[in-house]
Amino acid sequence: MSEKAGQKKLVEAITPMEEDFAKWYTDIVKKAELMDYSSVRGCMVIQPYGFAIWENIQAILDARFKELGHENVSMPLFIPESLLQKEKDHVEGFAPEVAWVTHGGEETLQERLCVRPTSETLFCDYYSRVIHSYRDLPKLYNQWCSVVRWEKTTRPFLRSVEFHWQEGHTMHETAQEAKAETEQMLKVYADFCENELAIPVVKGQKTEKEQFAGAEATYTIEAMMHDGKALQSGTSHYFGDGFARAFDITFQDRNNQSAYPHQTSWGMSTRIIGGIIMTHGDNDGLVLPPAIAPIQVIVLPIAQHKPGVLEKARELQERLKKTFRVRIDDSDQSPGWKFAQYEMKGVPLRLEIGPKDIEKGQCVLVRRHDREKIFVPLDQLEQAITEQLACVRQGIYEKAFSRRQEMTYTATTMDELKEIADNKPGLVKAMWCGELACEEAIREQAGLTSRCMPFEQETIADTCVCCGKPAKSMVYWGKAY
Amino acid sequence: MSEKAGQKKLVEAITPMEEDFAKWYTDIVKKAELMDYSSVRGCMVIQPYGFAIWENIQAILDARFKELGHENVSMPLFIPESLLQKEKDHVEGFAPEVAWVTHGGEETLQERLCVRPTSETLFCDYYSRVIHSYRDLPKLYNQWCSVVRWEKTTRPFLRSVEFHWQEGHTMHETAQEAKAETEQMLKVYADFCENELAIPVVKGQKTEKEQFAGAEATYTIEAMMHDGKALQSGTSHYFGDGFARAFDITFQDRNNQSAYPHQTSWGMSTRIIGGIIMTHGDNDGLVLPPAIAPIQVIVLPIAQHKPGVLEKARELQERLKKTFRVRIDDSDQSPGWKFAQYEMKGVPLRLEIGPKDIEKGQCVLVRRHDREKIFVPLDQLEQAITEQLACVRQGIYEKAFSRRQEMTYTATTMDELKEIADNKPGLVKAMWCGELACEEAIREQAGLTSRCMPFEQETIADTCVCCGKPAKSMVYWGKAY
Repeated sequence: MSEKAGQKKLVEAITPMEEDFAKWYTDIVKKAELMDYSSVRGCMVIQPYGFAIWENIQAILDARFKELGHENVSMPLFIPESLLQKEKDHVEGFAPEVAWVTHGGEETLQERLCVRPTSETLFCDYYSRVIHSYRDLPKLYNQWCSVVRWEKTTRPFLRSVEFHWQEGHTMHETAQEAKAETEQMLKVYADFCENELAIPVVKGQKTEKEQFAGAEATYTIEAMMHDGKALQSGTSHYFGDGFARAFDITFQDRNNQSAYPHQTSWGMSTRIIGGIIMTHGDNDGLVLPPAIAPIQVIVLPIAQHKPGVLEKARELQERLKKTFRVRIDDSDQSPGWKFAQYEMKGVPLRLEIGPKDIEKGQCVLVRRHDREKIFVPLDQLEQAITEQLACVRQGIYEKAFSRRQEMTYTATTMDELKEIADNKPGLVKAMWCGELACEEAIREQAGLTSRCMPFEQETIADTCVCCGKPAKSMVYWGKAY
Repeated sequence: MSEKAGQKKLVEAITPMEEDFAKWYTDIVKKAELMDYSSVRGCMVIQPYGFAIWENIQAILDARFKELGHENVSMPLFIPESLLQKEKDHVEGFAPEVAWVTHGGEETLQERLCVRPTSETLFCDYYSRVIHSYRDLPKLYNQWCSVVRWEKTTRPFLRSVEFHWQEGHTMHETAQEAKAETEQMLKVYADFCENELAIPVVKGQKTEKEQFAGAEATYTIEAMMHDGKALQSGTSHYFGDGFARAFDITFQDRNNQSAYPHQTSWGMSTRIIGGIIMTHGDNDGLVLPPAIAPIQVIVLPIAQHKPGVLEKARELQERLKKTFRVRIDDSDQSPGWKFAQYEMKGVPLRLEIGPKDIEKGQCVLVRRHDREKIFVPLDQLEQAITEQLACVRQGIYEKAFSRRQEMTYTATTMDELKEIADNKPGLVKAMWCGELACEEAIREQAGLTSRCMPFEQETIADTCVCCGKPAKSMVYWGKAY
């Protein structure tokens, strides 16, 4: 978007979400300058504004991981084919979608290497060399990197051939400890989504069908997007000792017996940026949660040619940048253009200051998400901004939460389920007998997949919505990204 | 290394550098737990302690880059073959050493993709789409990532198939601006090495032969290792408009004329960790500069079974961690084992506290690099640690600087040059006519390559050390990693 584009053009440029949700999404992604397409199919250029969001996400999560005793490491980018094949379920899940390196320089490789789609096998290979005794446990490792999955259909942030993520891989003395780690990390993700990103999530367990390749149990947090579809926003896997057996990782336990350690992995990726857009965005563009907004406050001088205005605006920016991520736009664009521009970029607070404000010793704060204007005496500005940022977080969280409530339904029969699936975008709570056959029937007949068996179970009925046999658990069903 | 190994075994485990420098280096790398080999030839597992060093390096450099207006982005991991081929010199330099992806999932790719060995071509491809006007300039982008070069012989950190680095790629309106950027970033690297890593460096320009593939000028900082070899520690390239022409990147300048922008790139990599080891390490292990040490102070309780000792040590750790990166080792290993362990890990300061110290209201600080002991009243501890960390930096810098001075020679004839090359490890200053033939002759006859033409020129003689024709510049010659 050229800097010269007027406000009108800028606003017109976004397709309303009611008209074409997919187009609305890609319009925002492009116009807010989060990413650009590259010459490599399915690989993104993440632009500065998009990458700054990811850096803020990284900083918060990384600090939390480290508080809990995790350490960062770096594993190789490549996995030899024989290593990928060691765990049967894992290779079946991933082999069809990896990129293969067959030549290095001018030589043909004796063994193909895949570009890591995930790094369980690399961590296990390493752990098999360094874990000998119970004193070597737990190993609490994490890495920030990009991984590659040869997806056929891709969408910015939501599904791309290369994406950024973190992957935690831990090894424990006992199954109990490993299970506790799996649950703890899911909780970290859920807290992060709810408190920092203002995205309400459902915590639950995946059905066996939807489990990670090689896992004994996969836990997930599921968020609901504007269009009612679910977004799997973070997962945490419990592996038992399956990989340890496949990779021959043993340790001497406290009774001097040889034992297999128990393993977890957990990840959150740049796909969460897609989740932020589709949870909070509106027809004027992005709406960013303050915790990860690259710019929390944009200072806009009004009638900036008038004496003293620019000086005052710059003075405020200097003062505020000690506490907030703040920028000033003192370019000669019109205020209208600037309003539209920073709304598009989802900046949580706009600070306007003009000659009249200066006279009164005040300025105006305008909240992005609800356009509320607040007049603030300049000597109370830091406090007011802190309060308003908290208020933005609360406001967008509640909006998303209400929407999820409104768009969550219950069904006790297949007819009900199908009727909802056909006419009402959203999630459906329905009972399930635990059989794969019913899960597949629901997919075929209603077009819905199981999102998770939530930790917070409800008893909607006693029988499976599909087969009528006794129900084992309540499941959230939906369409998903 | 098992935790049970006694102090003696631990110390014995390092080969003295005088005996076998290469083995000393890999011993440290392994025993200090910086990295481990992986199943993929030439690719490292960077372990937590090694990666924490890299994270500290990243944090300092990243803040400096951003202060100067640079923004982080993420370019794809892959480069289509046709894109790599666009700039003639560049493809010649890199094509022989890239890894090729030929298959994605189950399909054979129509066009091979290489795993990026460096990302000039990707940045140019992107810039060609987003640069239209002088108002779009400068573009000051950087990315932190790993790159792959199919090296035949690899060594931990110094030369590996995959390595981590940052690569800055900038575009400017004028040649002058781009040149200023190239020089500015070299200065950032030099300041970082000298002030934070305590590694003295020579700033200079590479000869045309040693230039980066596709660059008009390459600037470098060169450091001298314990064994007298040079380590290229950071480079900054000026490209002129060569890539811009190859990629058809044009912009409308201030006179409404179409023009090519001028480009730079600059990088520093995990190889600098090798430089830290080989500049400061000794026969007891690593010696880390305080600015990037994962642990700046290790608290060791002495006679920790005596009442009050552990409590006091833990209290000190809690107090100090507000200001420093501090850890306590209250395991039941002997003090001797712990001393050796944290010397191996290069922790700049050891804090000992025992019953007698507590009585006197003091503790003991021991500096890693010179074993100096300082008794410090507990109420002055923060100030004393701050001073001692500065003193460590100064001490190891001066040691490295003196060594470089002592091991730098001058030669005015080829006989002198060869005599030094054969008998005295180090760098040699000698005049050069600027001809490739002489540079090659010096390599063949003396086994030395040109490290750089330093910015601080001296006139050692009027004629080229090789051919006797008028000299154009003084060059540092040496053996290099």
